[in-house]
Amino acid sequence: MSQIARSARLRSTPFTSRVDALGVQGYTVYNHMLLATSFRGVEEDYRHLKEHVQVWDVSCERQVEIKGPDSWRLTQLMTCRDLSQAKEKQCFYAPLVDEDGLLVNDPIIIKLSDDHWWLSIADSDVLLWARGLARGFGFDVKITEPNINPVAIQGPKADELMARIFGETVRDIRFFRYEWLPYQGHDFLVARSGWSKQGGFEVYVDDDEIGQALWDELFEKGKDLDVGPGCPNLIERIEGGLYSYGSDMDATISPLHSNLDRYCHHDRDIDFLGKEALRRIDREGLRAQVVGLKIEGEALSPPDIHWPVYEGHDNSDAEFSFDDPCVGRVTSAAWSPDLETNIAFCRLPIRYQPGDAMTVVSPLGARNATVCAIPFV
Amino acid sequence: MSQIARSARLRSTPFTSRVDALGVQGYTVYNHMLLATSFRGVEEDYRHLKEHVQVWDVSCERQVEIKGPDSWRLTQLMTCRDLSQAKEKQCFYAPLVDEDGLLVNDPIIIKLSDDHWWLSIADSDVLLWARGLARGFGFDVKITEPNINPVAIQGPKADELMARIFGETVRDIRFFRYEWLPYQGHDFLVARSGWSKQGGFEVYVDDDEIGQALWDELFEKGKDLDVGPGCPNLIERIEGGLYSYGSDMDATISPLHSNLDRYCHHDRDIDFLGKEALRRIDREGLRAQVVGLKIEGEALSPPDIHWPVYEGHDNSDAEFSFDDPCVGRVTSAAWSPDLETNIAFCRLPIRYQPGDAMTVVSPLGARNATVCAIPFV
Repeated sequence: MSQIARSARLRSTPFTSRVDALGVQGYTVYNHMLLATSFRGVEEDYRHLKEHVQVWDVSCERQVEIKGPDSWRLTQLMTCRDLSQAKEKQCFYAPLVDEDGLLVNDPIIIKLSDDHWWLSIADSDVLLWARGLARGFGFDVKITEPNINPVAIQGPKADELMARIFGETVRDIRFFRYEWLPYQGHDFLVARSGWSKQGGFEVYVDDDEIGQALWDELFEKGKDLDVGPGCPNLIERIEGGLYSYGSDMDATISPLHSNLDRYCHHDRDIDFLGKEALRRIDREGLRAQVVGLKIEGEALSPPDIHWPVYEGHDNSDAEFSFDDPCVGRVTSAAWSPDLETNIAFCRLPIRYQPGDAMTVVSPLGARNATVCAIPFV
Repeated sequence: MSQIARSARLRSTPFTSRVDALGVQGYTVYNHMLLATSFRGVEEDYRHLKEHVQVWDVSCERQVEIKGPDSWRLTQLMTCRDLSQAKEKQCFYAPLVDEDGLLVNDPIIIKLSDDHWWLSIADSDVLLWARGLARGFGFDVKITEPNINPVAIQGPKADELMARIFGETVRDIRFFRYEWLPYQGHDFLVARSGWSKQGGFEVYVDDDEIGQALWDELFEKGKDLDVGPGCPNLIERIEGGLYSYGSDMDATISPLHSNLDRYCHHDRDIDFLGKEALRRIDREGLRAQVVGLKIEGEALSPPDIHWPVYEGHDNSDAEFSFDDPCVGRVTSAAWSPDLETNIAFCRLPIRYQPGDAMTVVSPLGARNATVCAIPFV
């Protein structure tokens, strides 16, 4: 293992000194910013997240703010999801797609008003794409990255903890809806969302000092709930079927190749860049898909490169052979303590179905694997 | 210090397994890719770089390839540097500037032919900006990120090492010029360039396997030259006045604020996005600039956040006071063994001149500092 070399280029957040003090073990870099990856080990963090409540510094979910008369037109142009019926206080998981039908990002889009939108982005500089498009098309918009640093409160006790601070009203926020809730005289946007399947909220902190006070109070008020520091958890997010942009999907594939069909509205009367490309992909048929894999044997360490996948099992009735072509690759993997097996996301040709036998070549050797549905749990 | 959590999202390079095996101590992330930051410690690496020759994996210098009839038009539109007289086999340090005159990136632009350009980029997704602009303006171009992974050979013995492999002809390549040179039957683009002031070359590796053979031969043929692994060196680059995009300059300032005036050709008859904005900044006059600072006292660790800077010295004739406003911030700093002082880049109002007394508030307390010219050596 190597150290991460801290520098001003890898941006800190208003909460970094607190995250450091809480004993963070590992960092990654996301949107040029620090993001914790474990506190007490990925497996212990996973267990805690599924039983208690965690506070996450997800400042790296940067907001691309689009304001002005053409802001809806630009926002819709970038995504294949139909936003024509979008209302205030709604959040939308929305793949961004370029003119070739390829994924640029997969943000949560938040409608603040008809001419005011936030794109809460995954790891690519959507700001630059949006500004390039706006300039080229001559749109009347203002596009910025405001100083907004989300904090996520995740886990089965998230409602109880949040209610102690924001009041009982927070329990009434529905999934992917938000409300403006006061804290120390300041209104925060609070959404029921977050990058886990354990339930919870994201608070869009647009005031550093009040946000730090909120952070501290979350830990203070949550002591008897066993509140702990946390971060997006590799095991939990694979179990729950949450893809990571840049790893499980990226700018080489379309949302149709990524099981995101339900967010692809290229059959509707809306105007977005990738519309013709998605129609063409639909006509021609998919060649590849993202599927789940269960990989046999002892726990594998998470991949830092994609692992090759072959057809068939490497056993006495062996169909598998290294002479056969590599048909796919594992993009994320982890040992699931609850499922007692290695689980993974994998890109495979469309002909493979749940139950099919595959072989994954991991750093610990060739392993039998079986195609399965996503999510795993 | 925390660990870096490796994942497929933080892309490895064709050389990462070699870099790991050579005992890399630290990594950063640059253009979503791993970049080493030290092997034997930043100070020992610095000494070695100034005396011998190093091989660097700078794959993270990604290429944005622009091809097609409108490729020159788009390339010129993105930069304030006049490319109208550019010829093949030339490289250009070229600030990219948006319509507000703000820095998007500071790549090396390489002209392959009239309708074929590479932008060898710093740490932001220029690909997305270029694609957005091209789509909006309706340009006839193809924009991709090809699988090109540069290797840098840097240090006073770089010519000797490269001549042993590519022949004596490599010595004739002039600064910021390139030649196509054969290696194992494959032509590599070899430029006299690199992110140090010690001289050397960059080989644009567009074939993984042949590139790995080249890497291995560089170490094999350089044994008696004390060849070693290396990477952009914090101390050496500050001494030499090389700014890091994202730290010393970013999308909040213009190239005029970053001492890059000589690359700003807004007085010429060329068409680029930031032209009117740079003219306006010129008319209104600069308010801030990037300057050098020497900071007194014992060695400081490099900043992971910007350090505040105040006017005056904190001594018996004290002009400095915390009640005065903070006037600037240190963006990069390191202890220079050769200069026997801490050296830094700092953003300050334009009124400060070399020799002016300042106070830097570092994690080790307030320190006297003096404004000075860049480069330091």
